[in-house]
Amino acid sequence: MSSLKDFDLIFFGATGDLALRKLLPALYYAFRDNKRPVGWRILGLARRGLSRDEYLGLLGDNCRQFIPATDFDDATWGEFCARIDYLPVDGTNPDGFSALPAWFQNRADRVRVFYLSTAARLFGPICEGLARHNLVTPLTRVVLEKPLGHDCASAEAINEAVGSIFPEQQIFRIDHYLGKEPVQNLLALRFGNSIFEPLWNRGSVRDVQITIAEQVGAEGRGEYYDPSGAMRDMVQSHMLQLLCIVAMEPPTSINADAVRDEKLKVLRALRPINAANIKEKTVRGQYRAGAVSGKPVPGYLDEPGIPPDSRTETYVAIKAEVDNWRWSGVPFFLRTGKRLPERMAEIVVNFHPVPHAILPQSASSGEANRLVIRLQPDEGVKLFLLVKVPGEGMRVKPVALDLDFAETFKHRQWEAYERLLMEVIQGNLTLFMRRDELAAAWRWVDPILEGWHALDEPPKPYTAGTWGPAAASALILRDGLAWREEA
Amino acid sequence: MSSLKDFDLIFFGATGDLALRKLLPALYYAFRDNKRPVGWRILGLARRGLSRDEYLGLLGDNCRQFIPATDFDDATWGEFCARIDYLPVDGTNPDGFSALPAWFQNRADRVRVFYLSTAARLFGPICEGLARHNLVTPLTRVVLEKPLGHDCASAEAINEAVGSIFPEQQIFRIDHYLGKEPVQNLLALRFGNSIFEPLWNRGSVRDVQITIAEQVGAEGRGEYYDPSGAMRDMVQSHMLQLLCIVAMEPPTSINADAVRDEKLKVLRALRPINAANIKEKTVRGQYRAGAVSGKPVPGYLDEPGIPPDSRTETYVAIKAEVDNWRWSGVPFFLRTGKRLPERMAEIVVNFHPVPHAILPQSASSGEANRLVIRLQPDEGVKLFLLVKVPGEGMRVKPVALDLDFAETFKHRQWEAYERLLMEVIQGNLTLFMRRDELAAAWRWVDPILEGWHALDEPPKPYTAGTWGPAAASALILRDGLAWREEA
Repeated sequence: MSSLKDFDLIFFGATGDLALRKLLPALYYAFRDNKRPVGWRILGLARRGLSRDEYLGLLGDNCRQFIPATDFDDATWGEFCARIDYLPVDGTNPDGFSALPAWFQNRADRVRVFYLSTAARLFGPICEGLARHNLVTPLTRVVLEKPLGHDCASAEAINEAVGSIFPEQQIFRIDHYLGKEPVQNLLALRFGNSIFEPLWNRGSVRDVQITIAEQVGAEGRGEYYDPSGAMRDMVQSHMLQLLCIVAMEPPTSINADAVRDEKLKVLRALRPINAANIKEKTVRGQYRAGAVSGKPVPGYLDEPGIPPDSRTETYVAIKAEVDNWRWSGVPFFLRTGKRLPERMAEIVVNFHPVPHAILPQSASSGEANRLVIRLQPDEGVKLFLLVKVPGEGMRVKPVALDLDFAETFKHRQWEAYERLLMEVIQGNLTLFMRRDELAAAWRWVDPILEGWHALDEPPKPYTAGTWGPAAASALILRDGLAWREEA
Repeated sequence: MSSLKDFDLIFFGATGDLALRKLLPALYYAFRDNKRPVGWRILGLARRGLSRDEYLGLLGDNCRQFIPATDFDDATWGEFCARIDYLPVDGTNPDGFSALPAWFQNRADRVRVFYLSTAARLFGPICEGLARHNLVTPLTRVVLEKPLGHDCASAEAINEAVGSIFPEQQIFRIDHYLGKEPVQNLLALRFGNSIFEPLWNRGSVRDVQITIAEQVGAEGRGEYYDPSGAMRDMVQSHMLQLLCIVAMEPPTSINADAVRDEKLKVLRALRPINAANIKEKTVRGQYRAGAVSGKPVPGYLDEPGIPPDSRTETYVAIKAEVDNWRWSGVPFFLRTGKRLPERMAEIVVNFHPVPHAILPQSASSGEANRLVIRLQPDEGVKLFLLVKVPGEGMRVKPVALDLDFAETFKHRQWEAYERLLMEVIQGNLTLFMRRDELAAAWRWVDPILEGWHALDEPPKPYTAGTWGPAAASALILRDGLAWREEA
């Protein structure tokens, strides 16, 4: 981080949960651990008419809650706060931006980051307001939080509006899953070692499973969630990004466009799912009342803010296929849902079983090799192998090898947002989505949404606290396989 | 071990170091840990006119020295000794075998093992003596210790003599390296997992290095060692066996002949080395006075029992090549020597570096993946990978993954001889050399020995306590490579 330049970081939506609980705690860590943080200035903007002191009080309350006490140092916190300012500026009313030029004092030599942690419909107007007040310099970057639209057309409209002000290389579309350490390590494993590439194809990989399981329901976020649903909320963004990282060809460099070109190729190679094959390739679910972690929870339709006849899916399982030479015939199973038994996100690369078993145990147990990239609740990359049990005879047994060895390094783990914020400040676009990627993702998702609509069936019910509708097990069983965790 | 049948185990050479320090301690462990050892009987035979009690005293002195005190239990030792008998029988005089039939009491229903821990010239006469006294039953097995001859002709003569008494499936030719846990685990890794086979060929493997390094010199064993030398003592036996385990095709089963057929194919595929290419493919060395572990040691020619003009090699380095589709172009570098800086034996499978480096550190460090099968002094299998350093940016770092995880299993490690003795008793030939294997190994070795003879050059001198002659580094450097440990 020694190469970090001076910067001004401006948050729209500074009183929102994301800013208070994720972004500013991440900056606190970066500030604490940076060797030369002299040039940092942070400005929070939001509608609420708070004084700077009131904002710092609100921020402190939140950060003390989300930063472990062992990491929270009062003196450092004081220094950090000295760099934070607050202005009550309403993103919906760009006329109010007139206070901003004075704050910047014409420092066009500094990196300037506008982080738009607001509703996507404000992205265009905010960018226009910034332009109108001459706040966009060559060193200015804009960060866009998801969701970017609700279909391809609306996403393109937003991109068009932002793109009329900022050139593409100044636009940082966040998908915080790309900032997670295990996803980074998967890239390092794939492209820093020679022994994975020969295995990374249809010859060795039997199937890939990507799961994002939540325990929470719609709860207080019903009005936001119901028009969206699991497909838009999770599949279109995080899950397709993870699929791209697994499936992409080795890029010619780690530079942004080389990586994003390869991800784009994957998105474009996804076999279309539409009304013709949607029943075979997808399962939608919606949770009913049940129990999670032993506590009774209401059904989706009884949550506040949910229309009683809502057909929004809270669960999706999809058999995706990447139509290229590398992956032909290898199913990529995606599933995500609310009110599942645990909070868990992982990528599982299942390798083929040995084609011909000659060791006693390997035949009977049917265990195969797999690589598991675990994103939450714990982070890590593990390789499951069969090794010999020491002692007499040739008995084998599965073991899990820890491939990131955090304890070996004794480094603090970075939160995804800390990494991504630092990448923005350094102007490195590799971990951010390019406009054509986003459009390609929507172009695969739109026909699925339309297919469901044409099908005119309600989502399949599942009891809260279970792994989704039985149809999701049937979906994967048709390939003779099973979801990893349900064993 | 629960399936272990009753057996009678007879050692020729029972007062020798191998019996006292390796074989009987191994049996003590097997006895201690076996659940149903009722039917064990052990008979020691040697020239020395000891009483049974005197032999047990000699044995106890040795075992207490070679079994850790924590493993040595007086009560168990007493029970073990109750099953041990001793007879002064001279292997060089089979007429003296007349005491043996009475000891066996015609128990032809029991497994009977004759372990010939004697000079190989006695193998034929002992077997004839056993036959003459009607001691060879269908359940009788004979175990032959190396060296089996000093060239192909002498080895075949011994095999012919033993083979005239015992059918091949009752002959167990020991190479104790095949009983070592990491060698077993290499088999489990190769054939119990699907992810190694796609890497196990010229496409992914750059070179293989097999090292057996000793700190000891000829010392008290000069008379034995000088007619033999490193080529016969190490390369012809242990090193070629290890090479076979690495290089063989997957056998159709783990049964003895399936495995040995595949090993034989490797030996027959070894590219011949002879007078024409011997200078390019081999290096011979002989140590001069120097220091090992900080203590001054004499040169080979000054050791007791060594002729002052001896040209026996105490060091060999060989570039071996396996001429088949899998390994074409992959050098197998073998080296072994006495008076090297450390006692160490290992197999290193070096994988190619990434063909195109896109991560910052991987390019600069040039680290490549490798699998290291360590046989001594510590045992283990490690995979060296590059993984991401947690935290900011994409820095990678090599880590070593422990692939046998002994601590996971909490099993006691078995000594090679314990495993091999139990395999003999169970009649499993997989870990023993078949006659045609031995002949094939000699057929590759003989022209090398003849080539050196024809060359009429003394071995290259190296200072005791160094890694052998500089020519050995040049040998591997000609392929642009280096021995692993000399970095």
